[in-house]
Amino acid sequence: MNNILIIGAGKSSAYLIKYLLEKSISYNFTLTIADKSIVNAKALSNSNKNATLIELDIFNDIKRKELIAKAHVVISMLPASLHIEIAKDCINLKKHLVTASYISKEMRALEDKVKEAGLVFMNEIGLDPGIDHMSAMLIIDRIRDNGAKMLLFESFCGGLVAPESDNNLWNYKFTWNPRNVVLAGQGGAAMFIQEGTNKYIPYHKLFRRTEFLTINGSGKFEAYANRDSLKYRHIYCLDNIPTMYRGTIRRIGFSRAWNIFVQLGMTDDSYTIENSENMSYRDFVNLFLAYSPSDSVELKLRSYLKIDQDDVMWDKLVELDLFNPNKKIGLKNASPAQILQKILEDSWTLKEDDKDMIVMQHLFGYELKGEKKQIESSLVVKGENQTYTAMAKTVGLPVGIAALKVLNGEIKTPGVHLPISKEIYEPVLKELKEYGISFTEKQTTYLGYNPNVVTG
Amino acid sequence: MNNILIIGAGKSSAYLIKYLLEKSISYNFTLTIADKSIVNAKALSNSNKNATLIELDIFNDIKRKELIAKAHVVISMLPASLHIEIAKDCINLKKHLVTASYISKEMRALEDKVKEAGLVFMNEIGLDPGIDHMSAMLIIDRIRDNGAKMLLFESFCGGLVAPESDNNLWNYKFTWNPRNVVLAGQGGAAMFIQEGTNKYIPYHKLFRRTEFLTINGSGKFEAYANRDSLKYRHIYCLDNIPTMYRGTIRRIGFSRAWNIFVQLGMTDDSYTIENSENMSYRDFVNLFLAYSPSDSVELKLRSYLKIDQDDVMWDKLVELDLFNPNKKIGLKNASPAQILQKILEDSWTLKEDDKDMIVMQHLFGYELKGEKKQIESSLVVKGENQTYTAMAKTVGLPVGIAALKVLNGEIKTPGVHLPISKEIYEPVLKELKEYGISFTEKQTTYLGYNPNVVTG
Repeated sequence: MNNILIIGAGKSSAYLIKYLLEKSISYNFTLTIADKSIVNAKALSNSNKNATLIELDIFNDIKRKELIAKAHVVISMLPASLHIEIAKDCINLKKHLVTASYISKEMRALEDKVKEAGLVFMNEIGLDPGIDHMSAMLIIDRIRDNGAKMLLFESFCGGLVAPESDNNLWNYKFTWNPRNVVLAGQGGAAMFIQEGTNKYIPYHKLFRRTEFLTINGSGKFEAYANRDSLKYRHIYCLDNIPTMYRGTIRRIGFSRAWNIFVQLGMTDDSYTIENSENMSYRDFVNLFLAYSPSDSVELKLRSYLKIDQDDVMWDKLVELDLFNPNKKIGLKNASPAQILQKILEDSWTLKEDDKDMIVMQHLFGYELKGEKKQIESSLVVKGENQTYTAMAKTVGLPVGIAALKVLNGEIKTPGVHLPISKEIYEPVLKELKEYGISFTEKQTTYLGYNPNVVTG
Repeated sequence: MNNILIIGAGKSSAYLIKYLLEKSISYNFTLTIADKSIVNAKALSNSNKNATLIELDIFNDIKRKELIAKAHVVISMLPASLHIEIAKDCINLKKHLVTASYISKEMRALEDKVKEAGLVFMNEIGLDPGIDHMSAMLIIDRIRDNGAKMLLFESFCGGLVAPESDNNLWNYKFTWNPRNVVLAGQGGAAMFIQEGTNKYIPYHKLFRRTEFLTINGSGKFEAYANRDSLKYRHIYCLDNIPTMYRGTIRRIGFSRAWNIFVQLGMTDDSYTIENSENMSYRDFVNLFLAYSPSDSVELKLRSYLKIDQDDVMWDKLVELDLFNPNKKIGLKNASPAQILQKILEDSWTLKEDDKDMIVMQHLFGYELKGEKKQIESSLVVKGENQTYTAMAKTVGLPVGIAALKVLNGEIKTPGVHLPISKEIYEPVLKELKEYGISFTEKQTTYLGYNPNVVTG
């Protein structure tokens, strides 16, 4: 009997496990779920007899190889940095591999061996990366197949709180790894191209150069630029496209307020604060403000960053209890970013009945027979609760669908892949529709690059 | 006959060579100057019969060791990263070593071996680090010897253009490695302590949090914070001092204008620009501004950074010819920082008859018998021309003096040192006075930390 092995059964695997167990009977395979602790896997697999749960320390080479040897397709849901040992095992033991992570240099280096062994290593097949690639390539290929020329590609994605659970001034809660949210945009300038000119935004300006977008039925959003949009020109075979931009979606006003943390230096993860453990939230804020024998932390901050007292940005800071002199940080030798994360988690952690929401939008500008046109393609997915989240659904379902299609031979071209070829995206997107993950497409007049940006 | 070996005879070695050749007769030693090319050394040593010039590729282990074997004291004037191989040779061949560079981890790790061999490895004995350490410790030790308690130490240093050669709006020219000026302040937050509270300034705010200082006879200056002032608490045995701040001096208004480059992202050295070679200066500026189908680069920049058209900051940019559409960058695959350096070098390179100027000021606050007092100690040194610069004088003379004192046994305690002990700083400072490098000391009323900072 065929076997699919899932390594890592964290928060994002609820739908993945549900989907594969549903399919395990008709497709005649068993599912093995291996994790450091099987508590979560137990709850998610609900004693299904087709599921075997195994406690696995992934650094235990013998046990890991033993499990992989028994599988036909391996799914790694571990953090990206931990895939590579599994990938090497998969080559040695001749097993297919599926992950939702970006293809690392190390993974890419395995290409020849993967091909030689006739294996499929399918990566970047979650939400972002994943559904973004597939839904973009579906329309890009169609436009090109019609003989048109691509002029513009803009793509936005964000994990947000659903409107019915949205009850703070930031219109934001953590629906994904909070650390990644705090560090977002760091590590270099954001790069993209607009109307033929490369543009570079340094980190400290990133949240002041946002763009707006509207998604029918869900209202207006803003987006800040992702790190490197330039490289997608090559990945999507759009090398000469004059406009290519990818961004992260937030509710309007989030970025302008988030910029306060950036300006203060609170998102810095490169050094640790002396005696952070016993500091109050207020002490923490004061570290980033000039000394004064008399002025309050509040006034110093407002004066430094020129924030009016009736600006909603100010209320957003107060809502986080940032100036509390009694609340202790309680983290030893923490970096500013770690401390900020702690403070935000007090306010932005989802409650058990809170629902999350995924929004994605692509804009495609093109020229067909001398006429310029534009297509807008949008996706909104809401979660059910804190187990069956929109994030788990949009990450886990494409992974599960791809794994099954690799198992049954529908996806079979050997190599280290991301889902940009028709062979992959067509069947996966088709099946995703059955689960309510479906884009709304709209033909619009050509707007070109929209210069309606927030600056300052 | 004794021999001193100088490895590296670049711009900063003019006074060092002059000094040692002058002393070589009375102190009965010969000088060997080894460099990649001996052109500069030839000009500087002026065919003095006590000087031997040798072409040396410092990666040629055999020749390098041969030269070191013949010397009694080795002076490395190479970039800091190249000292370590020479240091290892010095241990093996039992030679003393003098450098003007910060003690690296690798150098520090040699401590035991250096002591075992009975050698003196004297580092950080140029200007900054060097004269700053010695002139600070002279007064700190005196204050403590009097039974007083240190309350405050602030120290500022800068290499500037002398007033008589100052003819641009920035009141600045490159008197030292331009690359270091462009990258100054990068790599992490600036850290210091003011009245018992640690303060952290992120890079993008560094040039807006300057402090002012006045040096009698030379006028008013500003300073931005150096990277890590906190570590000097330990180095100077001031572990519990409530205020410790080190900064870099510029003429008033420099930092506010420099901040424009920081805000735009032009000082970034972490990525390269596509097609930089054929870009104009104007194109370069436009990379950091949002796309607009109609607005000019000038207006976009002013609007983005909120610069009034009659603000002198604007004139400073125009003076640099930053908006010239015809001037080509001419550097292949250059980083923004490399391109900015090129543009600045057009305007800020010293002419042959230009003079440079070194300014340094320390503030010492202390409490003696219940009374708070303050000492201000200032140094101004002007260069003669572009060979005998103030920078070469203040870096080279202490190196030369120390080397000679190591040679004749006046400085003899074995170990990896920086010049913070009396044995070293007293004789070196005394001799520096003979060459016009002398501090003006002033007793003032206690001001404590001066909160008169520029923010915004």
